Formats: sequence, C-alpha cells, structure tokens
Amino acid sequence: MSDNLTDFTFLQGVKIIDFTQFEAGPSCTESLAWLGADVVKVENPKLGDPGRRLRPDQPDIDPYYFHILNANKKSVTVNLKSPKGLELAKDLIRQADVMIENFAPGAIERLGLSYDDVKAVNPGIIYAQVKGFGEGSPFEKNLAFDMIAQACGGTFSVTGDKDGPPTRPGISLGDTGTGMVLAITILGALYKRRETGEGHQLQVAMQDAILHYMRIPFSTQGLTGKAAERGGSKVPGIVNAPMGLYPCAPGGPNDYVYVMTSRANPDHWDRLLTLIGREDLIGDERYLTPADRVAREPEVDEIIAAWTRGRSKYDAMKVVGESGIPAGAVLDTDELNSDVTFEERGVMQTMVHPVHRPFKMPAWPVRVDGKATRLTASPMLGEHTEEVISDWLGLNNAAIATLKRDGAVG
Amino acid sequence: MSDNLTDFTFLQGVKIIDFTQFEAGPSCTESLAWLGADVVKVENPKLGDPGRRLRPDQPDIDPYYFHILNANKKSVTVNLKSPKGLELAKDLIRQADVMIENFAPGAIERLGLSYDDVKAVNPGIIYAQVKGFGEGSPFEKNLAFDMIAQACGGTFSVTGDKDGPPTRPGISLGDTGTGMVLAITILGALYKRRETGEGHQLQVAMQDAILHYMRIPFSTQGLTGKAAERGGSKVPGIVNAPMGLYPCAPGGPNDYVYVMTSRANPDHWDRLLTLIGREDLIGDERYLTPADRVAREPEVDEIIAAWTRGRSKYDAMKVVGESGIPAGAVLDTDELNSDVTFEERGVMQTMVHPVHRPFKMPAWPVRVDGKATRLTASPMLGEHTEEVISDWLGLNNAAIATLKRDGAVG
Repeated sequence: MSDNLTDFTFLQGVKIIDFTQFEAGPSCTESLAWLGADVVKVENPKLGDPGRRLRPDQPDIDPYYFHILNANKKSVTVNLKSPKGLELAKDLIRQADVMIENFAPGAIERLGLSYDDVKAVNPGIIYAQVKGFGEGSPFEKNLAFDMIAQACGGTFSVTGDKDGPPTRPGISLGDTGTGMVLAITILGALYKRRETGEGHQLQVAMQDAILHYMRIPFSTQGLTGKAAERGGSKVPGIVNAPMGLYPCAPGGPNDYVYVMTSRANPDHWDRLLTLIGREDLIGDERYLTPADRVAREPEVDEIIAAWTRGRSKYDAMKVVGESGIPAGAVLDTDELNSDVTFEERGVMQTMVHPVHRPFKMPAWPVRVDGKATRLTASPMLGEHTEEVISDWLGLNNAAIATLKRDGAVG
Repeated sequence: MSDNLTDFTFLQGVKIIDFTQFEAGPSCTESLAWLGADVVKVENPKLGDPGRRLRPDQPDIDPYYFHILNANKKSVTVNLKSPKGLELAKDLIRQADVMIENFAPGAIERLGLSYDDVKAVNPGIIYAQVKGFGEGSPFEKNLAFDMIAQACGGTFSVTGDKDGPPTRPGISLGDTGTGMVLAITILGALYKRRETGEGHQLQVAMQDAILHYMRIPFSTQGLTGKAAERGGSKVPGIVNAPMGLYPCAPGGPNDYVYVMTSRANPDHWDRLLTLIGREDLIGDERYLTPADRVAREPEVDEIIAAWTRGRSKYDAMKVVGESGIPAGAVLDTDELNSDVTFEERGVMQTMVHPVHRPFKMPAWPVRVDGKATRLTASPMLGEHTEEVISDWLGLNNAAIATLKRDGAVG
C-alpha cells in the first residue's frame, strides 16, 4: 500500500496562516496542505477551532469531524485578544503567503485583522475570506451554516420526491463546495504572484458558491423558463425511461441499483430486455420509443424491478454494466469503508493519531504519477506552537517562554 | 453592474488543450478559463462535444447545458482520426502547459494520445484525466455518469427521508465536484512547474472524488461504527431540536424555511418561543433540554410549524435570523434568478451569445478585490480554429486552407 503513497510537493514552501473553523475554511486549507503547503492553524488556547468540539474538562467524544478536515496541518495557539498575541499573529502574517478566515461577519475586523490591517504589515499577502452571504445580499448580516447556505442556494429545491417537500442533500456542499472554489482561486492568485508579488483580497459567499454547483438546474430553468423541479431518483428534464433506482435483494435500506438507459442509444432498451429475460417485449409498441416508455414509466420501472429484486445490487450492477448500460449500486459509508481498493490506491487512508484510535478516512482523491499524497494526523491543539514560532520567526526558547508567560500564546 | 466586473489575469498565458466533454472535464477547464487561462477545446468537426447536444441537420434546442460549462473558452475542430489531424493535435499539445481529457476508458489511448504519446512530444506537460472509477477498482471498466458516480460514491445513501429509499441529490456533484478537485491539483502542479518545468500525469476518478464530499458522513460512521443514515431535512448525528424545514405560506412546493437552533446555545430555544408568541412554554419541563426536545420532536416541530405556516419563507427567515437563530428560506432557481443582488456582485451574469438568446447564469463565485471575472460567450463549434492555429503554431492562411482541404480540421 505505501508504494502508492508519496508526499506531494507542489506547494512546498508556501506558508498559509489559517484562521478558519468548522468546515468551509478548513476544507480549503486542507486541500492546500495535501498539495504540500505549510498550513498553520491559529487557534484560541482554550478550546481551539470549535470544529474540535472540545468541552472544558471533558473528554473529546467527537474527534472525527476535526480529523477529517484538518489532516496535514499544524496548530499554533495564540490569544488574539491580548495585545502581545495580536502582535505575534501579525509577525506570523508578515511571513505568510496566504491568510484565510471564515469567522462570523465582522469578527475578523473586531480582532484587528481586517484586510487593511493585514495589508499594512504584508502588502503581498493573498487574503481570503469565506462569508455566508455576499456583501450586498439582503442576508449579508445573517449567520450561515451549511444547511442555511444550501437552502438559500437552491439545492434543497431540487432534491427529494417530485411531490414531496424539499430535501437536504446529505453532503455538506455549502461548506466543502465553497472551500474548493476558494482553493482554486487562491492557487490562481499564488501562480500569478510568483511573477508579480502582488497581493489580493479574495471573497466567496457560501450561498454564491452553491449556485456554481446548481448550474445544471439553472440550465433546465433556461429551457423551461420555470423553477427546476425535484425528481426523486430521476433527473427532471431527461426524458427517457428506464432510468432511476431499482430495488435489489435482500431489501436493506441501501439495496438499490441505479440503471440509466440512454435516449440516444435505442439499443439499450432491447439489450436490457434480453438481459432480464423479457425478449417477449422487444418491439412491443407500448414501449417502443423513449416517449412511449416515459408515458408508461411505472410499468417500465416494474418490469426492471421484477428482475432486480431477485439480485444483489452488486450482481445487478455487474451484469447490467457488462451489457454496456450504465449502472451503479447505491453504496453506503460502511460498504465504501470495507472496499480495500480505495486504500490500495491511497484514496482512503488511515489516520494514526497520538490520542484517538486509528481512523480510516478519505484522503485527497487526485493521484499524481500513480500515487496519492500521504495523510498525516491532524494536530493536537497547540502542538506546533513552539516549532512554528521558532521556524517562521526565528525566536529562541527564552523568547517563546516569555510569550507564554505573558499569555500571548497558549 | 459592469463596475463590479474585471478580467481575472491570474492564469494569463497558460495554455490548456481541452479534450473534455459533458460536465466533469468542462467544469474543470471552465474554472481555469475564468481565472484567465487560454482554454482551447478540441472538438470533432461533426457534432463537437456531445454536451452541445447537436443533432445532424436539426436546430440546437438545448444549448444552455453547453453554455453554462464552456464560457470563456475557444473551440477548434480537429479530425483526430485523420493522420494529419492527429499530427496537428500534437503540434498544439507541444505548445500547451496542460492537457485534459475525460473520454470513456481506453479511448484516449486508441486515439494515440496516451500519456506516453503526449509526453514524447511535450515532456513538461501536465496531463490530467477524469475516470469514472479508479484503476484497480472492481468497476474500473464501467462507464460512469454523474448519477452512477454518486450512487457508488455514497451520496444517495445519505439523502432522503429516514424511512424512505435513497435519493439523488439534485446537483451533479459527481461531475462538477470532480472537476473542482482536479482543477486544484492542476493548479498545484502548475505552481511547482514554474520552478521545475516538470510535467506530471494527474488522474481522478469520479467515485473517488465523491468520497471527498462525503467526509462528514464518514466522520459519523467513525463515531457510530455503522453506515451513515438519511435524515430527511434533519442532520443525522446532530442531536438537537428544533432543526429542519418548516412549512410557510402560501404553501407552494418550495415554501419552507430552515431553522436551526444550536445545542450549544440553550438560549436559542427560549428566544424562538418568545418570537413565536409561546412564552408560556419557556421553562416547560417537557421541552427543557435538547434531549427532552428530541424525545418530543414531532410536538416541537409542530409548535414551530404552527407559527411558520402563517408567514412567507422570506418573513420567517428575516425575523428568525434577526433574533440570532440561523434560518434560511428554501429558494428555487426561479427565485434565485430574480434576485438582482447576484448580478450586482457579478456572481450571476448574462451570456450574450451570437445565436441563442441572452441567458443569465452563475459565473465564477469568488470575487477578487471586490470584482467578479467577466463572462464571455461559450464558443460556436470551430469558432476559433483559424485563430488558434495561427496564434499557437504561427501557420498562415494558406497552410490552414491546406489543413482544411486535407480534412484535418473542420
């Protein structure tokens, strides 16, 4: 397995000072860490990033949320509310290529680390911010969490049964989806900066980022002039059948297979009928064209389901897929966790942590020259305070001890 | 409005040769185009990228899908199956910094443009590929479309009602989500290449990319040891109430507001009761702690819904939000399309196209120094053939006419 791992060095030497918390910001900086950047989380000495979910004097019962978003980073604890702590933060900022934050609206300014404040000490810095809602939005002062950004960004409106209520997509796209578009822009700015040395202020709002992922529903709206609809497991706007989820044996909550015949390939329907032993229906006028099959979609779906119910989702995926018709089993986190091929290619890796039990988690999914980048443990709170202050600022032990005594660092 | 637009130049001068189609690849290269790269789509002269949905001798009835994924790019038509066309493609590749493709498994090799073929003419190129399933996966030979990658990557398993079937998230995360992680890695490779000149082969599988967006469900599985579950509009694993969607007036399919009280902030519940005129329930032992409220969640939800039903989702979002409790209206594409504040900050822009009617669409969501990057129309098929061959290769009109006569270009 370890043959498939390496340490990506694309961003070697790039210093990121990371004031982010929870998921939207940390997912962004973690992707940069996986590419080799030196990502230093600045955390408050008491409980750190609230994504750690530490509670005073109680054991950490929920570390995985933090692990999964903060691998390959360092942690420095700085008391930003003390003048010496703020001064130290500015000293670190002076050395950094990128600063990023996702505090609630107004908080970074109240700390004294607005873009103007930061630019004054480091004019070439790339200063990146995540907001919930964009400046100028009617909601610009509102707090946003993933669910709020997704509701207001449209994903709920296109998820769920056709006749049912809007539904939350089970992934935190408002957070990680935002982190990804911000990482892309930071990297663009870094690329140019190698030439110009110029700094910039980057801002993304979670609601705005969601629109980027909603582009297909917007293209549907372009065609119909109406709000894009929900379609359950179907895709509204694709007029073809059969398409969707079909129940499989033994009937557990995720025992389904997605089957998708193509409108552009009329042969798919005949091939599927042959596969399921219903050659008698080949050429049947009731089901001849995509339009005919859509008109009788419940009947068509039952023809397929009568066959899939007798098979496991893996078998159904295999034989339908082998016949050249796109098919996919619905896999849950437990099934995905058990598939060793993800580990074999380094896409899943186990975090070996000094305190918590080993934890298998998704690592960076893109492989370079056949290898994945190696996962290292997320930092303990303040684990790298002395190391980073020494490396970035050249302070010696005595100077660091003074900072500690003064309450500037944790 | 135009004051809020500029042309991002972060990737000015970076040449991308783009053999991608549909969404996963085009979403990646479009993000690079928005940052200022010179993205040249190489398309077959007959019908081009199948995402154009062109049909022989018929009008283009479905252009928006293509528009939305191919803004700010150029189109060159090359017949890759003719020896002279392939030679021309290699001449273009020799000039490029990045090449990217997302054909079906084996297709790029059959065309004669495998990584080895391409490296032979341009050793410093960054060669990026999107696969459906990773090499070594039991499904590595299967076709994958967005729905298949999402089913097999886990998103269906965590979306939908607790007791209902798995449900498709209404966004094409298997495509655009994959495009984003690949763009990040390409940019990392480009950054390093400024120093080393080194090329690399980058590969991402859509199923693997989905795991990256599934990290929160994987962290839940880490805690419970069981497959992450569906929760309708609730978030399984967050033990608190009230949280979720509440119906609003006038009762349309998207007339709901998401309200999320925090377990960490017991004051939220009392504040909400005051807001909805149910001070009588403050201190009521039935609803005192988060655990109490979860045990009586249907009752708690009805207390909130009795109030939200009398209000529009906008009003409910406004007053709940102003009381400091996170709240978000469920907005659909039509409502988002009508909100002019997206245009005011350049996050939505109108594509003015030479053939199709003007189309308002989401543009790149990250703003730099307060400005968004300017949208330009997606290219007509082959629109830039002569321009690019002249610019990249220095060929004159006579040479280009010969290429056309020989059937190498469209």
